[in-house]
Amino acid sequence: MRDAYSDQLDAIFDDLATIASDVKVAVARATTALLTGDAVVAEQVISADVVIDTRRERVEDRSFSLLSLQQPVAGDLRTIVAALRMVADLERAGDLAVHVAKIARLRVPGIAVPEDVRPMVQRMAEIAEEMVGRTARIIAERDIDGATALAKVEDEMDNLRAQMLRDLLGSDWSHGVESAVDLALLGRYYERIGDHAVSVANRVVYVVTGVRPSRD
Amino acid sequence: MRDAYSDQLDAIFDDLATIASDVKVAVARATTALLTGDAVVAEQVISADVVIDTRRERVEDRSFSLLSLQQPVAGDLRTIVAALRMVADLERAGDLAVHVAKIARLRVPGIAVPEDVRPMVQRMAEIAEEMVGRTARIIAERDIDGATALAKVEDEMDNLRAQMLRDLLGSDWSHGVESAVDLALLGRYYERIGDHAVSVANRVVYVVTGVRPSRD
Repeated sequence: MRDAYSDQLDAIFDDLATIASDVKVAVARATTALLTGDAVVAEQVISADVVIDTRRERVEDRSFSLLSLQQPVAGDLRTIVAALRMVADLERAGDLAVHVAKIARLRVPGIAVPEDVRPMVQRMAEIAEEMVGRTARIIAERDIDGATALAKVEDEMDNLRAQMLRDLLGSDWSHGVESAVDLALLGRYYERIGDHAVSVANRVVYVVTGVRPSRD
Repeated sequence: MRDAYSDQLDAIFDDLATIASDVKVAVARATTALLTGDAVVAEQVISADVVIDTRRERVEDRSFSLLSLQQPVAGDLRTIVAALRMVADLERAGDLAVHVAKIARLRVPGIAVPEDVRPMVQRMAEIAEEMVGRTARIIAERDIDGATALAKVEDEMDNLRAQMLRDLLGSDWSHGVESAVDLALLGRYYERIGDHAVSVANRVVYVVTGVRPSRD
């Protein structure tokens, strides 16, 4: 049976899914800025972050008000507490997209990523973007199969990051220290975006099944 | 007036302060491992992280049980929700200490940090350790003056990290790419430990004053 309470919970989850979509766009744009050296796009990502922060505050206010006024127990309580954590993860992922955009901006009119490394960075970025995009659907549809599948995508991310570090540290690295430092941080940022996506997905599993996620 | 409810809330805050102390120790030991190339100490940090994780679960279980059984409102509700977030920040700071220890372990029998950079890394590590240590007291004593003062310490951290990046990218960097990559990541890890400490301190301010922290 639908009631005002369920409607409010749904509104919170709608906001979470919207934030996930916003973060996906931020990751995609930050990557474009990074790989093309486009300062305008980088600025867009940096200035759009306030939209994510504002939505985050709305989720927090709504969750708090539900906790306070409705005195939920058991499953509903778990859901609201999970929402508060998911929104924190998503906001952090948005912040990491801003970090990527700032590295892009720092190297304009150049491009931070040397040409022969771009395919690898592109692939890491695609995985990060896809992971965040999947969380939007996982949240909207409480999709626990999708959540479980996300962990497999993360394996590719981990392998790529390890490969990138090996490349940076290999004897045939010819792009100097600045590129290596940028890439070490970029690899870390994309990996963390993926981590936050997995954390969000695990919380959806927790909301649906009541089983605490094994990692986050 | 003391009651069972206040006692349970105090027990949660005692756990939080203990976790902050554990994280302080982890940061200190990870730094020792890093600057002396001591694999045994590095392993200690890595294996001790499970203690922090276990305490974190206890804080979560206790908070959840208070939310569920006592149906708190207003200030108490805010306090419990803040506790859930503080414990997440502290656990992440502990994970970052583990990352530092893993870089130390990776370079054994060598030392990841070149000799002339050690004083700077030592100083960053001291600040991170001090910031986390202060949060233990801020939590235990609900010390909002201490929380406000923490932001000033963070400024020194930010300056040091910027200085370190300038050094790495300067024309007289003579320690090669591997050291530069390690240091770029180490700088990021120590900075994030400090960020988490500030976030915890801000939440204590929120608990005491009811004013939402301006950043976290």
